Amino acid sequence: MNSGRKISELAAHVGGRATGNPDEMIYDIAQLENAGSGAIAFLEEQKFIDRAQNTNASCVIVPEGVRLEGKNFIEVARPKLAFVLVAEILRPRPSVENFRHETAIVAASARLGAPVIIGAYSTVGERATIGAGTEIKAGARIGADVSIGRDCTIHSNAVLYDNVAIGDRTVLHANVVIGADGFGYVRDETGYKKFPQTGTVVIETDVEIGAHTCIDRAAFGETRIGRGTKIDNLVQIAHNVRIGERVVIASQTGISGSTVIEDDCIIGGQVGFGDHARVERGAIIGSKAGVLPGKIVRGNGAVYWGVPCAPARRIQNHERAFGTPAADEKGTRPTS
Amino acid sequence: MNSGRKISELAAHVGGRATGNPDEMIYDIAQLENAGSGAIAFLEEQKFIDRAQNTNASCVIVPEGVRLEGKNFIEVARPKLAFVLVAEILRPRPSVENFRHETAIVAASARLGAPVIIGAYSTVGERATIGAGTEIKAGARIGADVSIGRDCTIHSNAVLYDNVAIGDRTVLHANVVIGADGFGYVRDETGYKKFPQTGTVVIETDVEIGAHTCIDRAAFGETRIGRGTKIDNLVQIAHNVRIGERVVIASQTGISGSTVIEDDCIIGGQVGFGDHARVERGAIIGSKAGVLPGKIVRGNGAVYWGVPCAPARRIQNHERAFGTPAADEKGTRPTS
Amino acid sequence: MNSGRKISELAAHVGGRATGNPDEMIYDIAQLENAGSGAIAFLEEQKFIDRAQNTNASCVIVPEGVRLEGKNFIEVARPKLAFVLVAEILRPRPSVENFRHETAIVAASARLGAPVIIGAYSTVGERATIGAGTEIKAGARIGADVSIGRDCTIHSNAVLYDNVAIGDRTVLHANVVIGADGFGYVRDETGYKKFPQTGTVVIETDVEIGAHTCIDRAAFGETRIGRGTKIDNLVQIAHNVRIGERVVIASQTGISGSTVIEDDCIIGGQVGFGDHARVERGAIIGSKAGVLPGKIVRGNGAVYWGVPCAPARRIQNHERAFGTPAADEKGTRPTS
Repeated sequence: MNSGRKISELAAHVGGRATGNPDEMIYDIAQLENAGSGAIAFLEEQKFIDRAQNTNASCVIVPEGVRLEGKNFIEVARPKLAFVLVAEILRPRPSVENFRHETAIVAASARLGAPVIIGAYSTVGERATIGAGTEIKAGARIGADVSIGRDCTIHSNAVLYDNVAIGDRTVLHANVVIGADGFGYVRDETGYKKFPQTGTVVIETDVEIGAHTCIDRAAFGETRIGRGTKIDNLVQIAHNVRIGERVVIASQTGISGSTVIEDDCIIGGQVGFGDHARVERGAIIGSKAGVLPGKIVRGNGAVYWGVPCAPARRIQNHERAFGTPAADEKGTRPTS
Repeated sequence: MNSGRKISELAAHVGGRATGNPDEMIYDIAQLENAGSGAIAFLEEQKFIDRAQNTNASCVIVPEGVRLEGKNFIEVARPKLAFVLVAEILRPRPSVENFRHETAIVAASARLGAPVIIGAYSTVGERATIGAGTEIKAGARIGADVSIGRDCTIHSNAVLYDNVAIGDRTVLHANVVIGADGFGYVRDETGYKKFPQTGTVVIETDVEIGAHTCIDRAAFGETRIGRGTKIDNLVQIAHNVRIGERVVIASQTGISGSTVIEDDCIIGGQVGFGDHARVERGAIIGSKAGVLPGKIVRGNGAVYWGVPCAPARRIQNHERAFGTPAADEKGTRPTS
Repeated sequence: MNSGRKISELAAHVGGRATGNPDEMIYDIAQLENAGSGAIAFLEEQKFIDRAQNTNASCVIVPEGVRLEGKNFIEVARPKLAFVLVAEILRPRPSVENFRHETAIVAASARLGAPVIIGAYSTVGERATIGAGTEIKAGARIGADVSIGRDCTIHSNAVLYDNVAIGDRTVLHANVVIGADGFGYVRDETGYKKFPQTGTVVIETDVEIGAHTCIDRAAFGETRIGRGTKIDNLVQIAHNVRIGERVVIASQTGISGSTVIEDDCIIGGQVGFGDHARVERGAIIGSKAGVLPGKIVRGNGAVYWGVPCAPARRIQNHERAFGTPAADEKGTRPTS
């Protein structure tokens, strides 16, 4: 997979203390249970120390104070975080070598950085711009006047309507749809007439968007997804929604028009938000909650549950039952 | 964008009374806050009159009785509706000029009206018919024996299975799937055997269907979506469902097999319908409600909430809390 | 449609007793109400015997003890099941004749069985293997190192990421995404870092997966869908989930990471599962239920409802109201 790194190098990278043979080479990441020689794994909680003691991994990242017998190990304050940092080194994103499949249809007025990969049967519209290091996979549709930053990955069959913008290092998974019309109509005697959806979508840098998620274009202005936000599969984000930075949204959640979710919020799965709601910075909303239209949800780490959602202390049975909120459920546990 | 219209023309079109310079030319629609010269905007509620007074728009559509100083304005009974009517004139659907991308694969037995646009890497199956004025975007899949009416737009990567029918002026957004098999099985000692899904899907005229929505084909007979109905993203419509005319369905709602939703209903987001239910004409069902299998929901503007759903007066806390029902949340407010 | 079968042959195939003319030929399946000459239909419940008596079908499959006057009929214990068995004979899956569309892009290192159909504008990656009898429809994306068994159907625009495995006789509907990255991050001071998603997805034999369903690859190890399991549209299955054999999952349900659903469970629509839950063999979970993270749900046909879910006897109002559980609603009723 790669030329390997010495345990000492990895320990230095994560600010940890290595015990054992610092010169042993590590080539890949693995789980404790399935690791082989040359792999590094991690132990998140001391109570599972037997797994670490019995692993075949060549090195284990352990919590400070935990010591393994006859093993190489690295002590750190946060083993899972250190493991992720090590993974970034051992499994870097493959380098993009300039390649344009002969079947890719790229408008003459599009501007491509170099290197970029433009996959088979993909299409790139007029005046689109694609930054260096970006890969467009097979069958993706990049509309006219779309801007895509550097080092992005646009997976197969994703569809970007005209005139949307994607920041650097953003990943759109397969079949994502960005910039479809917002859902707005006005009724008259004969039926519904479409309210114009003339705006755009802006996705900032370091965002990841799961398969089949839809982000609609604004009626006027923009729908915006902030820097470092992570969105799971099958999520619906309506027109003129604004999502802040470092927000996590689990699968199948739906956010109605013009709602604002501020920085550092954590949103569970299957949550529904009415329109024009506001979730303040750092709020945590449990899975399946319902947020009323126009509602202001207070932030700073408060936890909300239920339909309509309420602070968790008011619904202690749920709090006890659910234990940790949704984002811990989905985002920060090891998934062994 | 276009050659413009005089304010007097627009006022006549919407049946409003113009004040100011009736000969000033209007070229585009805009919001009050971001409008520039040559644009027309609208004021929905008198309480925001400051926005209208301070706009740079060249004309504002206002409620009857509202007057702006030193501005061109048009008084009408329903400003938002008038704005939509004006938008239809200033931003008409682009005219379709006959174009068939050289990579489009169109079966010899398919019949195409003229003009039509058939996009790159799209496929059109045997005996399919496509009406004049329709655009098939890149990568869309039109199965055999599919019928598509006039002036439709089929967005990129949508998939129409064989033998489904789409009426005139209907829009299918990106990645919509029409006509996949309904979900029906019969269990025996060894497992599930598939019940045949031999029917079709019929979508009538003037329908809009959001990205990633699925409408399954009937087991026998048809799944039908009525004229003028508007469906949001990520909605599931099962086999043999019948949706009436002018129904609005918000995102992520799911409708089980053989359920009927009559004309003029309004359905919120994330609602679930059991099978063989019936929602009578004009009923309103709030977001996240659950409708039991076989349930009959009374119509005529009654509002339902909850799981299982009940008339809103029985759950007044919710009614007070939610305020307006879901469709107003999604469909009829300005989304500034 | 086919050369037809004698009623006597069909009766023998389903272990039923034929009355009337055993030599009459049957060419197709139909509903009682719409059947014509040459068709066979079924009567599930005696109370609808008038429909059977008045049908134009040439033969009706009826419950044991039900007799029609002046009609050909076949008595069996389970008419609907017999009808499905007859449908398998009269409407077999079309035979696959070897065909590779000239626009299909198949890596030189891929290995294709024979016969296979590889559709227009589809792509097949390096070292992928595709078993005999399988059809890949237009625009499907088969990644590198993907294994697909025999007699599968991969519908249009489905996306299989690299290195996933699909068993024999499995159907993936349009736009299904298999093997996108699981949703896992670790937070540090600056934001979220992605936990590596290095595992795979294994789908066993005889599985059907509905349109727009997502099954994420494991962080390590595998996400697995057991033999004979049937999954509806728009379902989310997260990393490291394990679904047993003969499980039915209705539309828009979401299953969080590492949750286990054992054999023979029935899961309604819009259900949400927290992570690391376990649903024991044969449990039935009603639509819209919520299963807490880490929860163990007892099996053996017990029925659960609500958020958080509880045995149905504790919430008898729901039980009375919902009547039959979700899977009967979706899966085992005739859908006329």
